[in-house]
Amino acid sequence: MEEKNTKNKTQPTELRQDLVTGDWVVIATGRAKRPEDFAKKRAPIEEDPNKPCFFCYPEETGQEKDVLMYERADGDWSLRVFPNKYPAFEPEKKVKHKEEGPYFAMDGTGYHELIVTRDHHRQIAQMNVLEVAEIVDAYQERYIDLMNKKSVNYIEIFHNHGKEAGASIGHPHSQLMAIPVISPYVQGELDGAENYHKANKHCVYCAIIEWELEHKKRVVFENEHFLAYCPFSSRAAFEVWVVPKKHKPYFERTNDKEKIALAEALQISIKNIFKALDDPAYNFYLHTSPCDGKDYPHFHWHIEILPHTANWAGFELSTGIEISTIQPEVAADFLRNQ
Amino acid sequence: MEEKNTKNKTQPTELRQDLVTGDWVVIATGRAKRPEDFAKKRAPIEEDPNKPCFFCYPEETGQEKDVLMYERADGDWSLRVFPNKYPAFEPEKKVKHKEEGPYFAMDGTGYHELIVTRDHHRQIAQMNVLEVAEIVDAYQERYIDLMNKKSVNYIEIFHNHGKEAGASIGHPHSQLMAIPVISPYVQGELDGAENYHKANKHCVYCAIIEWELEHKKRVVFENEHFLAYCPFSSRAAFEVWVVPKKHKPYFERTNDKEKIALAEALQISIKNIFKALDDPAYNFYLHTSPCDGKDYPHFHWHIEILPHTANWAGFELSTGIEISTIQPEVAADFLRNQ
Repeated sequence: MEEKNTKNKTQPTELRQDLVTGDWVVIATGRAKRPEDFAKKRAPIEEDPNKPCFFCYPEETGQEKDVLMYERADGDWSLRVFPNKYPAFEPEKKVKHKEEGPYFAMDGTGYHELIVTRDHHRQIAQMNVLEVAEIVDAYQERYIDLMNKKSVNYIEIFHNHGKEAGASIGHPHSQLMAIPVISPYVQGELDGAENYHKANKHCVYCAIIEWELEHKKRVVFENEHFLAYCPFSSRAAFEVWVVPKKHKPYFERTNDKEKIALAEALQISIKNIFKALDDPAYNFYLHTSPCDGKDYPHFHWHIEILPHTANWAGFELSTGIEISTIQPEVAADFLRNQ
Repeated sequence: MEEKNTKNKTQPTELRQDLVTGDWVVIATGRAKRPEDFAKKRAPIEEDPNKPCFFCYPEETGQEKDVLMYERADGDWSLRVFPNKYPAFEPEKKVKHKEEGPYFAMDGTGYHELIVTRDHHRQIAQMNVLEVAEIVDAYQERYIDLMNKKSVNYIEIFHNHGKEAGASIGHPHSQLMAIPVISPYVQGELDGAENYHKANKHCVYCAIIEWELEHKKRVVFENEHFLAYCPFSSRAAFEVWVVPKKHKPYFERTNDKEKIALAEALQISIKNIFKALDDPAYNFYLHTSPCDGKDYPHFHWHIEILPHTANWAGFELSTGIEISTIQPEVAADFLRNQ
């Protein structure tokens, strides 16, 4: 967000409140561009042609042993999961709490795994629904295996696509981190959902879904079980959320039919972002109820997709208030019609 | 944050808690690099040599009229403040609240100004203390002018340096946004300071400052009135905070002597980041008490400087938990000795 030279003013600036967290976003379309002007092809990730890819050849490049592998009919593998060789969180230690003067710390106990699909040059936007369903299957299978481990209180599953989105290896892959703390963003959503339920006796996400399905102006895609839409208070241009239409607190309880529907909604959302924005960098991640031994009946799991079309600058870093330069309604219309 | 190939492991991963907000950061030095390996020269901002710079020639390029100008002895200007021609917030409207179904919104009423120094190629790292003191003076003068305006509840002052930090114009400048809401990050710090004071009967920032001054291991610079240090729970590699040593809730009450001391601490911190990391992109911003008509006796204003040495990836975006790959103690030692 900057004092960039832009086109004519079309709409006044608007502050929109996130119904769940209470946070504000700024929709500043006075700096408006046409939707197609947001296109920003991701930068290439440098790869040494003389070295084998870590993920095409996990054994040859000394990766950790698989914890999960799916095979194709021809005997080759189609998806593998293995621990990160350079993990941010490691399973071998107990959670040890530490103090330094007024401060608190603890060991980074946990699990950090990589979920890798077979083809180096085939990204989710180019996959078919069954290939994406296999990724969703792997997310769920690893989630269920780790959710009851001692010291694991939250499992974060995410996908970085493109250099600007933080990927340093070009081969498509997702990551899973099982960690001992509940993150502040998830905690904010849990608290918001809890408070809304106390006041209104129903789920805040269900209220949003009902409104969006009735009015359609921010819908990108829907099928029987899932809705993909641009949130009213989008934090990023072309942000898309994929949510189960029915009230579902726990991702791990998604059944086979729902997983196919999820794969379809996720694949089409990402494909349309790919087409609309000329193969941009993006992140997506899953927010679901913690696995800390408590129940979260009022939470509603979902996937948030954030295309990377701008850098966070001082205002966003300072305030946590994001400035988006396209109306979510205009973004949804553009994505829907790809 | 990614599964990058890195050097030998030196320290186990650690989760550190922010004493004010309760948020966690990850210090993952298993992916450790030497401090000098974090150097990342900012990318150049393209400038058309045939067009005059907006900020070298505000009149010629049709910028808005100055609201503040400082002159040099030779009659030329040394600093100017003018409204952003393409503002994210605009003063002309009343705050109008809106509803759409379950959602709330309001007009983006406020002020958005640019604080511009004279020399196109002279950044803060290269300025002398008096030049930086002039910038601090302008921040305070504009703050005081706007703090009592109707509809202004918080004033955000920040500086984006380099393309990766969100700057789109190469000429050094800061920005001020006076807005009708209190941002979630500031609110988190206000709440944290309030809760800590309730429990401990003193200011949480004062407790941090006392500890840091006693142990020195995260100190980057200090003078009579200010401390610059790398926070225990740094969110970014080489993050530096500049804080008044005495308990001070309100930036606008900073006196002349303190302003010179602040300018010195800020300039030396930025100069050492410039030298240590080879002129990287960075953001800094001021967090002070809101100007919403209430008192905040337990808050402690400060400036946060965030060098831009890595992109936020899926884990950080999803969780709000940041993964830093250098210990703040090591970063502080490296910065201190530039």
